[in-house]
Amino acid sequence: MAEKPKAVVLLSGGMDSCVTAAIANQTHRLALLHASYGQRTERRERRSFDEIADFYNAHERLVVRFDALSQIGGSALTDRGIAVPEKGEALAPEVTIPMSYVPFRNAHFLSAAVSWAEVIGATAIFIGAVAEDSSGYPDCRPEYYRAFEALIREGTRPETHIAIVTPVIAMRKSQIVQRAVEIGAPLDRTWSCYQFEDEACGVCDSCRLRLAAFAGAGLRDPIAYRVQVAR
Amino acid sequence: MAEKPKAVVLLSGGMDSCVTAAIANQTHRLALLHASYGQRTERRERRSFDEIADFYNAHERLVVRFDALSQIGGSALTDRGIAVPEKGEALAPEVTIPMSYVPFRNAHFLSAAVSWAEVIGATAIFIGAVAEDSSGYPDCRPEYYRAFEALIREGTRPETHIAIVTPVIAMRKSQIVQRAVEIGAPLDRTWSCYQFEDEACGVCDSCRLRLAAFAGAGLRDPIAYRVQVAR
Repeated sequence: MAEKPKAVVLLSGGMDSCVTAAIANQTHRLALLHASYGQRTERRERRSFDEIADFYNAHERLVVRFDALSQIGGSALTDRGIAVPEKGEALAPEVTIPMSYVPFRNAHFLSAAVSWAEVIGATAIFIGAVAEDSSGYPDCRPEYYRAFEALIREGTRPETHIAIVTPVIAMRKSQIVQRAVEIGAPLDRTWSCYQFEDEACGVCDSCRLRLAAFAGAGLRDPIAYRVQVAR
Repeated sequence: MAEKPKAVVLLSGGMDSCVTAAIANQTHRLALLHASYGQRTERRERRSFDEIADFYNAHERLVVRFDALSQIGGSALTDRGIAVPEKGEALAPEVTIPMSYVPFRNAHFLSAAVSWAEVIGATAIFIGAVAEDSSGYPDCRPEYYRAFEALIREGTRPETHIAIVTPVIAMRKSQIVQRAVEIGAPLDRTWSCYQFEDEACGVCDSCRLRLAAFAGAGLRDPIAYRVQVAR
Protein backbone atom coordinates (compact mmCIF):
# COMPACT_ATOMS: atom_id res chain seq x y z
CA MET A 1 0.00 0.00 0.00
CA ALA A 2 1.33 3.42 -0.91
CA GLU A 3 2.27 5.69 1.96
CA LYS A 4 -0.21 8.45 2.71
CA PRO A 5 0.77 11.88 1.39
CA LYS A 6 2.09 14.42 3.86
CA ALA A 7 0.16 17.51 4.94
CA VAL A 8 1.19 20.54 6.97
CA VAL A 9 -1.56 21.33 9.48
CA LEU A 10 -1.70 24.70 11.22
CA LEU A 11 -2.50 23.75 14.80
CA SER A 12 -3.09 26.67 17.15
CA GLY A 13 -4.40 24.43 19.88
CA GLY A 14 -7.97 25.72 19.51
CA MET A 15 -11.06 23.69 18.74
CA ASP A 16 -11.22 24.43 15.01
CA SER A 17 -7.60 23.51 14.32
CA CYS A 18 -7.88 20.38 16.47
CA VAL A 19 -10.82 19.10 14.42
CA THR A 20 -8.95 20.09 11.26
CA ALA A 21 -5.96 17.98 12.37
CA ALA A 22 -8.32 15.08 13.10
CA ILE A 23 -9.77 15.34 9.59
CA ALA A 24 -6.33 15.64 7.96
CA ASN A 25 -5.16 12.61 9.93
CA GLN A 26 -7.67 10.42 8.09
CA THR A 27 -5.98 10.92 4.73
CA HIS A 28 -2.49 12.37 5.37
CA ARG A 29 0.60 12.01 7.50
CA LEU A 30 0.62 15.02 9.83
CA ALA A 31 3.33 17.67 9.92
CA LEU A 32 2.09 20.03 12.63
CA LEU A 33 2.95 23.73 12.65
CA HIS A 34 2.32 25.93 15.67
CA ALA A 35 2.65 29.71 15.73
CA SER A 36 3.46 31.80 18.74
CA TYR A 37 3.20 35.51 18.18
CA GLY A 38 3.11 37.20 21.54
CA GLN A 39 -0.59 36.56 21.98
CA ARG A 40 -1.80 36.78 25.59
CA THR A 41 -2.41 33.05 26.00
CA GLU A 42 0.72 31.93 24.15
CA ARG A 43 2.00 29.41 26.73
CA ARG A 44 -1.39 27.77 27.18
CA GLU A 45 -1.92 27.39 23.44
CA ARG A 46 1.53 25.82 23.11
CA ARG A 47 0.59 23.26 25.76
CA SER A 48 -2.55 22.38 23.79
CA PHE A 49 -0.48 22.01 20.63
CA ASP A 50 1.91 19.61 22.35
CA GLU A 51 -0.92 17.55 23.83
CA ILE A 52 -2.84 17.29 20.56
CA ALA A 53 0.35 16.45 18.65
CA ASP A 54 1.05 13.69 21.19
CA PHE A 55 -2.52 12.42 20.81
CA TYR A 56 -1.99 12.00 17.06
CA ASN A 57 1.56 10.76 17.51
CA ALA A 58 2.82 13.34 15.01
CA HIS A 59 6.52 12.98 14.31
CA GLU A 60 7.06 16.18 12.34
CA ARG A 61 6.42 19.30 14.39
CA LEU A 62 7.53 22.88 13.97
CA VAL A 63 6.97 25.70 16.45
CA VAL A 64 7.70 29.14 15.06
CA ARG A 65 7.86 32.55 16.72
CA PHE A 66 6.36 35.34 14.61
CA ASP A 67 7.97 38.40 16.13
CA ALA A 68 6.57 40.77 13.53
CA LEU A 69 2.98 40.40 14.78
CA SER A 70 3.75 41.43 18.36
CA GLN A 71 6.15 44.16 17.21
CA ILE A 72 3.52 45.64 14.91
CA GLY A 73 0.58 45.32 17.32
CA GLY A 74 -2.73 46.77 16.20
CA SER A 75 -4.83 44.00 17.76
CA ALA A 76 -6.29 43.26 21.16
CA LEU A 77 -4.62 39.85 20.97
CA THR A 78 -1.06 41.16 20.66
CA ASP A 79 -1.19 44.79 21.80
CA ARG A 80 -1.43 45.32 25.57
CA GLY A 81 -2.78 48.82 24.91
CA ILE A 82 -5.98 47.40 23.37
CA ALA A 83 -8.45 45.61 25.64
CA VAL A 84 -9.88 42.18 24.79
CA PRO A 85 -13.63 42.71 24.15
CA GLU A 86 -15.61 41.01 26.90
CA LYS A 87 -19.24 41.84 26.50
CA GLY A 88 -19.95 40.41 23.09
CA GLU A 89 -19.95 43.92 21.57
CA ALA A 90 -17.36 42.88 19.00
CA LEU A 91 -19.69 40.10 17.88
CA ALA A 92 -22.57 42.50 17.17
CA PRO A 93 -23.64 42.48 13.51
CA GLU A 94 -22.69 46.15 12.96
CA VAL A 95 -19.05 45.53 13.93
CA THR A 96 -17.47 44.27 10.72
CA ILE A 97 -13.89 43.73 11.89
CA PRO A 98 -13.38 43.07 15.61
CA MET A 99 -10.52 44.46 17.74
CA SER A 100 -9.11 40.96 18.05
CA TYR A 101 -8.32 41.01 14.31
CA VAL A 102 -4.54 40.72 13.89
CA PRO A 103 -3.75 42.52 10.64
CA PHE A 104 -2.98 39.99 7.88
CA ARG A 105 -2.07 37.38 10.49
CA ASN A 106 -2.89 34.22 8.60
CA ALA A 107 -0.58 35.18 5.73
CA HIS A 108 2.37 34.98 8.15
CA PHE A 109 1.35 31.48 9.23
CA LEU A 110 0.55 30.27 5.73
CA SER A 111 3.86 31.59 4.41
CA ALA A 112 5.70 29.47 6.95
CA ALA A 113 3.47 26.52 6.10
CA VAL A 114 4.27 26.86 2.40
CA SER A 115 8.03 27.17 2.99
CA TRP A 116 7.96 24.11 5.23
CA ALA A 117 5.70 22.14 2.87
CA GLU A 118 8.02 22.87 -0.05
CA VAL A 119 11.08 21.68 1.91
CA ILE A 120 9.52 18.50 3.40
CA GLY A 121 7.49 17.60 0.31
CA ALA A 122 3.99 18.08 1.70
CA THR A 123 1.28 18.46 -0.92
CA ALA A 124 -1.42 20.08 1.20
CA ILE A 125 -1.81 22.66 3.95
CA PHE A 126 -4.80 22.24 6.26
CA ILE A 127 -6.08 25.28 8.16
CA GLY A 128 -9.08 25.42 10.48
CA ALA A 129 -10.50 28.72 9.31
CA VAL A 130 -14.23 29.23 9.87
CA ALA A 131 -15.98 31.75 7.66
CA GLU A 132 -19.63 31.96 8.54
CA ASP A 133 -20.08 31.44 12.24
CA SER A 134 -16.90 33.19 13.29
CA SER A 135 -15.57 36.59 14.25
CA GLY A 136 -15.61 38.25 10.83
CA TYR A 137 -11.88 38.20 10.09
CA PRO A 138 -11.21 38.94 6.41
CA ASP A 139 -8.53 36.25 6.27
CA CYS A 140 -10.94 33.46 7.20
CA ARG A 141 -13.05 33.52 4.02
CA PRO A 142 -12.87 31.02 1.14
CA GLU A 143 -11.92 33.78 -1.37
CA TYR A 144 -8.84 34.49 0.70
CA TYR A 145 -7.64 30.89 0.49
CA ARG A 146 -8.22 30.72 -3.28
CA ALA A 147 -6.10 33.87 -3.59
CA PHE A 148 -3.42 32.25 -1.44
CA GLU A 149 -3.39 29.14 -3.62
CA ALA A 150 -2.86 31.38 -6.65
CA LEU A 151 0.07 32.99 -4.83
CA ILE A 152 1.59 29.58 -4.09
CA ARG A 153 1.38 28.66 -7.77
CA GLU A 154 3.25 31.84 -8.71
CA GLY A 155 5.75 31.86 -5.87
CA THR A 156 7.15 28.33 -5.59
CA ARG A 157 9.24 26.00 -7.73
CA PRO A 158 7.42 24.92 -10.93
CA GLU A 159 7.29 21.30 -9.69
CA THR A 160 5.76 22.28 -6.34
CA HIS A 161 2.01 21.72 -5.98
CA ILE A 162 0.44 22.61 -2.65
CA ALA A 163 -3.31 22.79 -2.04
CA ILE A 164 -4.86 24.72 0.83
CA VAL A 165 -7.58 22.67 2.50
CA THR A 166 -10.14 24.32 4.80
CA PRO A 167 -12.35 21.43 5.94
CA VAL A 168 -14.37 23.36 8.54
CA ILE A 169 -14.69 26.70 6.74
CA ALA A 170 -18.39 26.29 5.95
CA MET A 171 -19.38 24.64 9.24
CA ARG A 172 -21.19 26.31 12.08
CA LYS A 173 -19.33 26.13 15.38
CA SER A 174 -21.86 23.66 16.77
CA GLN A 175 -21.28 21.40 13.75
CA ILE A 176 -17.55 21.52 14.45
CA VAL A 177 -18.19 20.28 17.99
CA GLN A 178 -20.40 17.48 16.65
CA ARG A 179 -17.82 16.50 14.05
CA ALA A 180 -15.10 16.47 16.72
CA VAL A 181 -17.09 14.02 18.80
CA GLU A 182 -17.83 11.80 15.76
CA ILE A 183 -14.16 11.45 14.82
CA GLY A 184 -12.77 11.40 18.33
CA ALA A 185 -10.87 14.70 18.25
CA PRO A 186 -9.50 15.49 21.75
CA LEU A 187 -11.45 18.67 22.54
CA ASP A 188 -10.47 18.35 26.20
CA ARG A 189 -6.90 19.20 25.12
CA THR A 190 -7.86 22.38 23.24
CA TRP A 191 -7.75 26.01 24.39
CA SER A 192 -9.80 28.90 23.02
CA CYS A 193 -9.77 31.72 25.61
CA TYR A 194 -8.14 34.97 24.46
CA GLN A 195 -7.45 36.18 28.02
CA PHE A 196 -6.48 33.59 30.61
CA GLU A 197 -4.27 30.51 30.78
CA ASP A 198 -5.47 28.62 33.87
CA GLU A 199 -9.25 28.62 33.49
CA ALA A 200 -11.01 30.04 30.43
CA CYS A 201 -12.54 33.47 31.14
CA GLY A 202 -15.94 32.55 29.67
CA VAL A 203 -16.62 36.13 28.55
CA CYS A 204 -14.22 36.98 25.68
CA ASP A 205 -15.46 36.60 22.09
CA SER A 206 -13.70 33.30 21.68
CA CYS A 207 -15.12 31.77 24.88
CA ARG A 208 -18.59 33.00 23.97
CA LEU A 209 -18.42 31.38 20.54
CA ARG A 210 -17.09 28.15 22.03
CA LEU A 211 -19.72 27.93 24.77
CA ALA A 212 -22.48 28.68 22.28
CA ALA A 213 -21.11 25.94 20.02
CA PHE A 214 -21.28 23.31 22.75
CA ALA A 215 -24.73 24.50 23.79
CA GLY A 216 -25.88 24.34 20.15
CA ALA A 217 -24.54 20.80 19.88
CA GLY A 218 -26.25 19.86 23.13
CA LEU A 219 -22.93 18.90 24.71
CA ARG A 220 -20.91 19.92 27.74
CA ASP A 221 -17.55 21.62 27.17
CA PRO A 222 -14.91 19.50 28.96
CA ILE A 223 -12.64 22.45 29.87
CA ALA A 224 -12.93 24.64 33.01
CA TYR A 225 -14.37 28.18 32.97
CA ARG A 226 -14.28 30.97 35.54
CA VAL A 227 -17.66 32.26 34.43
CA GLN A 228 -20.29 30.89 32.09
CA VAL A 229 -22.53 33.67 30.83
CA ALA A 230 -26.15 32.70 30.23
CA ARG A 231 -26.86 32.84 26.53
CA MET B 1 0.68 71.33 0.58
CA ALA B 2 -0.65 67.92 1.47
CA GLU B 3 1.74 65.60 3.25
CA LYS B 4 3.21 62.85 1.09
CA PRO B 5 1.61 59.43 1.50
CA LYS B 6 3.47 56.82 3.51
CA ALA B 7 5.08 53.74 1.99
CA VAL B 8 6.62 50.66 3.57
CA VAL B 9 9.88 49.86 1.77
CA LEU B 10 11.52 46.45 2.15
CA LEU B 11 15.18 47.36 2.60
CA SER B 12 17.56 44.41 2.75
CA GLY B 13 20.61 46.60 2.45
CA GLY B 14 21.40 45.38 -1.06
CA MET B 15 21.70 47.46 -4.20
CA ASP B 16 18.22 46.80 -5.60
CA SER B 17 16.40 47.67 -2.37
CA CYS B 18 18.57 50.77 -1.87
CA VAL B 19 17.61 52.12 -5.30
CA THR B 20 14.00 51.18 -4.59
CA ALA B 21 14.10 53.23 -1.36
CA ALA B 22 15.60 56.15 -3.29
CA ILE B 23 12.76 55.97 -5.81
CA ALA B 24 10.09 55.64 -3.11
CA ASN B 25 11.60 58.62 -1.28
CA GLN B 26 10.72 60.88 -4.22
CA THR B 27 6.97 60.43 -3.74
CA HIS B 28 6.44 58.92 -0.27
CA ARG B 29 7.43 59.20 3.37
CA LEU B 30 9.57 56.14 4.08
CA ALA B 31 8.74 53.44 6.62
CA LEU B 32 11.68 51.05 6.30
CA LEU B 33 11.36 47.33 7.03
CA HIS B 34 14.38 45.08 7.39
CA ALA B 35 14.27 41.30 7.64
CA SER B 36 16.83 39.14 9.34
CA TYR B 37 16.31 35.44 8.83
CA GLY B 38 19.51 33.71 9.83
CA GLN B 39 21.14 34.38 6.48
CA ARG B 40 24.94 34.11 6.52
CA THR B 41 25.57 37.85 6.17
CA GLU B 42 22.81 38.95 8.54
CA ARG B 43 24.88 41.39 10.63
CA ARG B 44 26.45 43.09 7.63
CA GLU B 45 23.09 43.54 5.91
CA ARG B 46 21.67 45.06 9.08
CA ARG B 47 24.51 47.59 9.13
CA SER B 48 23.70 48.55 5.54
CA PHE B 49 20.04 48.94 6.46
CA ASP B 50 20.91 51.29 9.32
CA GLU B 51 23.26 53.36 7.18
CA ILE B 52 20.81 53.70 4.29
CA ALA B 53 17.96 54.53 6.70
CA ASP B 54 20.17 57.24 8.25
CA PHE B 55 21.02 58.57 4.79
CA TYR B 56 17.31 59.06 4.06
CA ASN B 57 16.59 60.25 7.60
CA ALA B 58 13.78 57.68 7.89
CA HIS B 59 11.90 58.01 11.17
CA GLU B 60 9.82 54.83 10.94
CA ARG B 61 11.94 51.69 10.97
CA LEU B 62 11.11 48.09 11.80
CA VAL B 63 13.59 45.24 12.03
CA VAL B 64 11.99 41.80 12.20
CA ARG B 65 13.45 38.36 12.81
CA PHE B 66 11.91 35.63 10.65
CA ASP B 67 12.78 32.53 12.62
CA ALA B 68 10.76 30.22 10.38
CA LEU B 69 13.11 30.61 7.43
CA SER B 70 16.23 29.52 9.31
CA GLN B 71 14.31 26.78 11.14
CA ILE B 72 13.00 25.37 7.88
CA GLY B 73 16.25 25.68 5.90
CA GLY B 74 16.26 24.31 2.37
CA SER B 75 18.46 27.08 0.97
CA ALA B 76 22.18 27.78 0.70
CA LEU B 77 21.48 31.17 2.31
CA THR B 78 20.00 29.80 5.52
CA ASP B 79 21.06 26.17 5.71
CA ARG B 80 24.71 25.55 6.70
CA GLY B 81 24.48 22.10 5.13
CA ILE B 82 24.11 23.59 1.63
CA ALA B 83 27.11 25.39 0.09
CA VAL B 84 26.81 28.83 -1.47
CA PRO B 85 27.42 28.38 -5.23
CA GLU B 86 30.71 30.07 -6.16
CA LYS B 87 31.50 29.30 -9.75
CA GLY B 88 28.55 30.82 -11.50
CA GLU B 89 27.08 27.35 -12.08
CA ALA B 90 23.80 28.42 -10.49
CA LEU B 91 23.56 31.23 -13.01
CA ALA B 92 23.77 28.89 -15.99
CA PRO B 93 20.64 28.96 -18.18
CA GLU B 94 19.80 25.29 -17.55
CA VAL B 95 19.52 25.86 -13.79
CA THR B 96 16.00 27.14 -13.32
CA ILE B 97 15.87 27.57 -9.54
CA PRO B 98 19.24 28.13 -7.82
CA MET B 99 20.31 26.68 -4.46
CA SER B 100 20.19 30.16 -2.95
CA TYR B 101 16.40 30.17 -3.44
CA VAL B 102 14.76 30.41 0.00
CA PRO B 103 11.39 28.67 -0.34
CA PHE B 104 8.56 31.24 -0.46
CA ARG B 105 10.78 33.79 1.30
CA ASN B 106 9.30 37.01 -0.03
CA ALA B 107 5.82 36.06 1.19
CA HIS B 108 7.15 36.17 4.76
CA PHE B 109 8.55 39.66 4.23
CA LEU B 110 5.51 40.96 2.35
CA SER B 111 3.15 39.60 5.02
CA ALA B 112 5.00 41.66 7.64
CA ALA B 113 4.97 44.65 5.30
CA VAL B 114 1.20 44.38 4.84
CA SER B 115 0.52 43.99 8.58
CA TRP B 116 2.70 47.03 9.31
CA ALA B 117 1.24 49.07 6.45
CA GLU B 118 -2.29 48.36 7.65
CA VAL B 119 -1.44 49.47 11.21
CA ILE B 120 0.52 52.66 10.30
CA GLY B 121 -1.70 53.64 7.38
CA ALA B 122 0.77 53.19 4.52
CA THR B 123 -0.83 52.89 1.10
CA ALA B 124 2.04 51.27 -0.78
CA ILE B 125 4.73 48.64 -0.30
CA PHE B 126 7.90 49.05 -2.36
CA ILE B 127 10.06 46.00 -3.00
CA GLY B 128 13.24 45.85 -5.07
CA ALA B 129 12.54 42.59 -6.87
CA VAL B 130 14.30 42.12 -10.21
CA ALA B 131 12.75 39.67 -12.65
CA GLU B 132 14.81 39.47 -15.82
CA ASP B 133 18.42 39.94 -14.99
CA SER B 134 18.37 38.10 -11.69
CA SER B 135 18.75 34.66 -10.20
CA GLY B 136 15.51 33.08 -11.39
CA TYR B 137 13.60 33.10 -8.10
CA PRO B 138 9.89 32.41 -8.70
CA ASP B 139 8.91 35.09 -6.16
CA CYS B 140 10.64 37.88 -8.09
CA ARG B 141 8.32 37.91 -11.13
CA PRO B 142 5.57 40.48 -11.83
CA GLU B 143 2.86 37.76 -11.82
CA TYR B 144 3.79 36.95 -8.24
CA TYR B 145 3.26 40.54 -7.11
CA ARG B 146 -0.09 40.80 -8.89
CA ALA B 147 -1.15 37.63 -7.05
CA PHE B 148 0.01 39.16 -3.78
CA GLU B 149 -2.01 42.32 -4.40
CA ALA B 150 -5.07 40.13 -4.95
CA LEU B 151 -4.33 38.45 -1.62
CA ILE B 152 -4.08 41.83 0.13
CA ARG B 153 -7.48 42.83 -1.25
CA GLU B 154 -9.03 39.63 0.14
CA GLY B 155 -7.16 39.53 3.44
CA THR B 156 -7.31 43.02 4.93
CA ARG B 157 -10.01 45.36 6.25
CA PRO B 158 -12.41 46.52 3.50
CA GLU B 159 -11.15 50.11 3.83
CA THR B 160 -7.48 49.11 3.48
CA HIS B 161 -5.89 49.72 0.07
CA ILE B 162 -2.25 48.79 -0.35
CA ALA B 163 -0.44 48.65 -3.70
CA ILE B 164 2.75 46.69 -4.26
CA VAL B 165 5.25 48.75 -6.23
CA THR B 166 8.22 47.09 -7.93
CA PRO B 167 10.07 49.98 -9.58
CA VAL B 168 13.16 48.02 -10.66
CA ILE B 169 11.52 44.72 -11.61
CA ALA B 170 11.99 45.19 -15.37
CA MET B 171 15.46 46.79 -15.19
CA ARG B 172 18.71 45.10 -15.99
CA LYS B 173 21.22 45.20 -13.14
CA SER B 174 23.38 47.69 -15.03
CA GLN B 175 20.38 49.99 -15.43
CA ILE B 176 19.82 49.80 -11.68
CA VAL B 177 23.38 50.98 -11.10
CA GLN B 178 22.89 53.83 -13.58
CA ARG B 179 19.61 54.83 -11.97
CA ALA B 180 21.21 54.77 -8.52
CA VAL B 181 23.87 57.21 -9.68
CA GLU B 182 21.26 59.48 -11.32
CA ILE B 183 19.18 59.83 -8.16
CA GLY B 184 22.04 59.79 -5.69
CA ALA B 185 21.32 56.46 -3.99
CA PRO B 186 24.16 55.59 -1.57
CA LEU B 187 25.50 52.41 -3.21
CA ASP B 188 28.66 52.65 -1.07
CA ARG B 189 26.46 51.77 1.92
CA THR B 190 24.93 48.65 0.34
CA TRP B 191 25.91 44.99 0.75
CA SER B 192 25.26 42.15 -1.70
CA CYS B 193 27.66 39.29 -0.90
CA TYR B 194 26.01 36.03 0.21
CA GLN B 195 29.12 34.75 2.01
CA PHE B 196 31.27 37.27 3.82
CA GLU B 197 30.74 40.30 6.03
CA ASP B 198 34.08 42.14 5.95
CA GLU B 199 34.97 42.23 2.26
CA ALA B 200 32.66 40.88 -0.44
CA CYS B 201 33.78 37.46 -1.73
CA GLY B 202 33.53 38.45 -5.40
CA VAL B 203 32.63 34.90 -6.48
CA CYS B 204 29.12 34.08 -5.19
CA ASP B 205 26.15 34.55 -7.52
CA SER B 206 25.22 37.84 -5.91
CA CYS B 207 28.75 39.31 -6.18
CA ARG B 208 28.99 38.16 -9.79
CA LEU B 209 25.71 39.84 -10.70
CA ARG B 210 26.75 43.02 -8.90
CA LEU B 211 30.18 43.22 -10.47
CA ALA B 212 28.72 42.56 -13.92
CA ALA B 213 26.18 45.33 -13.31
CA PHE B 214 28.86 47.91 -12.52
CA ALA B 215 30.94 46.75 -15.45
CA GLY B 216 27.90 47.00 -17.73
CA ALA B 217 27.24 50.52 -16.50
CA GLY B 218 30.90 51.44 -17.03
CA LEU B 219 31.31 52.30 -13.35
CA ARG B 220 33.50 51.20 -10.46
CA ASP B 221 31.84 49.47 -7.51
CA PRO B 222 32.69 51.52 -4.38
CA ILE B 223 32.77 48.50 -2.00
CA ALA B 224 35.79 46.27 -1.29
CA TYR B 225 36.20 42.75 -2.74
CA ARG B 226 38.56 39.91 -1.88
CA VAL B 227 38.58 38.67 -5.46
CA GLN B 228 37.26 40.11 -8.68
CA VAL B 229 36.74 37.41 -11.29
CA ALA B 230 37.37 38.45 -14.89
CA ARG B 231 34.11 38.42 -16.79
